[in-house]
Amino acid sequence: MAETEGKRITLAERPEGMPTEQHLKLESMPVPGPAEGQMLLRTIYLSLDPYMRGRMSAAKSYAKPVEIGDPMEGGTVCEVVESKLDGYGAGDIVLARIGWQTHGLSDGTGVRKLDPAQGPITTAVGVMGMPGFTAYAGLLELGQPKEGETVVVSAASGAVGQVVGQIAKLKGCRVVGVAGADDKCAYVRDELGFDAAVNYKEPDFPEQLAAACPDGIDVYFENVGGKVLQAVLPNLNEFSRMPVCGLIAHYNDTGAPEGPDQLPGFMRTVLTKRLMVRGFIQFDFAPLMPSFLKDMAQWLQDGKVRYREDIVPGLENAVSAFQGLLQGKNRGKLIIQVGDDPTKQG
Amino acid sequence: MAETEGKRITLAERPEGMPTEQHLKLESMPVPGPAEGQMLLRTIYLSLDPYMRGRMSAAKSYAKPVEIGDPMEGGTVCEVVESKLDGYGAGDIVLARIGWQTHGLSDGTGVRKLDPAQGPITTAVGVMGMPGFTAYAGLLELGQPKEGETVVVSAASGAVGQVVGQIAKLKGCRVVGVAGADDKCAYVRDELGFDAAVNYKEPDFPEQLAAACPDGIDVYFENVGGKVLQAVLPNLNEFSRMPVCGLIAHYNDTGAPEGPDQLPGFMRTVLTKRLMVRGFIQFDFAPLMPSFLKDMAQWLQDGKVRYREDIVPGLENAVSAFQGLLQGKNRGKLIIQVGDDPTKQG
Repeated sequence: MAETEGKRITLAERPEGMPTEQHLKLESMPVPGPAEGQMLLRTIYLSLDPYMRGRMSAAKSYAKPVEIGDPMEGGTVCEVVESKLDGYGAGDIVLARIGWQTHGLSDGTGVRKLDPAQGPITTAVGVMGMPGFTAYAGLLELGQPKEGETVVVSAASGAVGQVVGQIAKLKGCRVVGVAGADDKCAYVRDELGFDAAVNYKEPDFPEQLAAACPDGIDVYFENVGGKVLQAVLPNLNEFSRMPVCGLIAHYNDTGAPEGPDQLPGFMRTVLTKRLMVRGFIQFDFAPLMPSFLKDMAQWLQDGKVRYREDIVPGLENAVSAFQGLLQGKNRGKLIIQVGDDPTKQG
Repeated sequence: MAETEGKRITLAERPEGMPTEQHLKLESMPVPGPAEGQMLLRTIYLSLDPYMRGRMSAAKSYAKPVEIGDPMEGGTVCEVVESKLDGYGAGDIVLARIGWQTHGLSDGTGVRKLDPAQGPITTAVGVMGMPGFTAYAGLLELGQPKEGETVVVSAASGAVGQVVGQIAKLKGCRVVGVAGADDKCAYVRDELGFDAAVNYKEPDFPEQLAAACPDGIDVYFENVGGKVLQAVLPNLNEFSRMPVCGLIAHYNDTGAPEGPDQLPGFMRTVLTKRLMVRGFIQFDFAPLMPSFLKDMAQWLQDGKVRYREDIVPGLENAVSAFQGLLQGKNRGKLIIQVGDDPTKQG
């Protein structure tokens, strides 16, 4: 276990458009030793999430961009290798944010110990982690779905979307998923119990979406933007709500897309439907985390929420996997397995 | 007083673009007599408001369009000519909605008696009426301005905008008005006490707006759309609020304007700033009406809210005045004086 050389992926250059290995460089690094009050962590799982595209850009956003030359940020499930920090010992499994690297030091800030007996440790970056919490907080706090209402979620089979739809079902809503592949649509409909699912790549997608929402749309959980958003607009009901969680169709845009300008039509919908549109980041809702962990643990235990993970082995595959994420190639929550998972041995 | 012939303006044809006398026809009509339970009203003042452009279109909106051949809708201040309705007598002054006509019948639905001793009766369709209530409800309920925050209002010298800015000042905000003429800017700044005002027709308007909002924008009260909205976006603060009251720049649009497409950039702002955008119509907030009437009466009495009215004589001038309203030619709340005002005689 006493590895002396580790690996990391740093931001070498800010991408315009799709990030490649020109922008994200795999490097060797010495494994550092912990000082007093620190612990050395070994990454087992690295979460890959669409928000990371934003951190690669210098554009002003809700969080600082990653600096050139620094390792990419990211949530990780780690094993403690060596600890000089009270409360942690070698072998502990923790949720941390050491980023796209095999090893890192931590002083415990933002770290949470995981109990492998409670369930697969991957869920700490998935359904029981940031994506699950994003779905929970955004849907319940901003979407405020009521029994009998229709909820549409885009990127429906992704880490966030799959949870949004299942929570909406638990709240008694009609749930329609939008995804970009027939197998994704089949998954959310047949495996997760969505009432309907529509493939936005079909030429008659707007008509299919309208047909799937005979009573209109009361909540649109926005992960995507682009043509999915355009197709949703005419179906929105009065006093509908649109939590804006992501815009993955636009993350690689290098400028405003060609016209016509859809903003005036969007604003007209806002006005005439009294639509509420609200962007959010899960950490805005941090006080809800305890109730989320409690509710979600119960739902998982009762089999009321299910999930799919797409685990790709090897840090060296993180860049291509991340490209695939931006292109919708993943199936469920995308996770890189960076090192051995001791909870799966024996 | 026993007139037998009246006049009205009916919707002869639905306009594409700017409405003209081809679409809005002045007609003679017989003055009707009231049945039991009705009263005959004579219009003194007719309120002209931007929302009326929407009622001329067949497009789905929050209210039904006016039918072809019917008189245009509108709020009016009227005198009761003859009453067969309990509680009303000849000479009473009332707020009603008999539309663009000199006379009309009413069964009392939605009618409110006015007391001329309380102030000019024109205010019932202005600062003490629908526009004032729109400002009050939209700003306070959706904008939620807090002391020290910056509030920007477009169409700042209009019937709604002038009230929005003054209420925001009363709440301790920095208030910046946006208008399309230097005299309008001077009015809101020098007469109404806004902290700054910017003319959106100036070539360096975006820079001027940014300079007027050194601490960014916390509330943008949207009456306009178009380039004012575009200039606001980069200055919005995190967790800012945008009540959407109107989009006068777009009411005559005959399709989506030329590109580029500004919607993705708008949604990115929504996401990264956690902006709240919410369309509204004043009648959604009807339960607030009593507190509005109480607060506004007090503010007027104390000289804390002032207002400007632009009173145009003659129903025959309503179409050109309405065109001017859509072009920003009015100065303050636009009102047509349709008949003699008995409260100004003697």
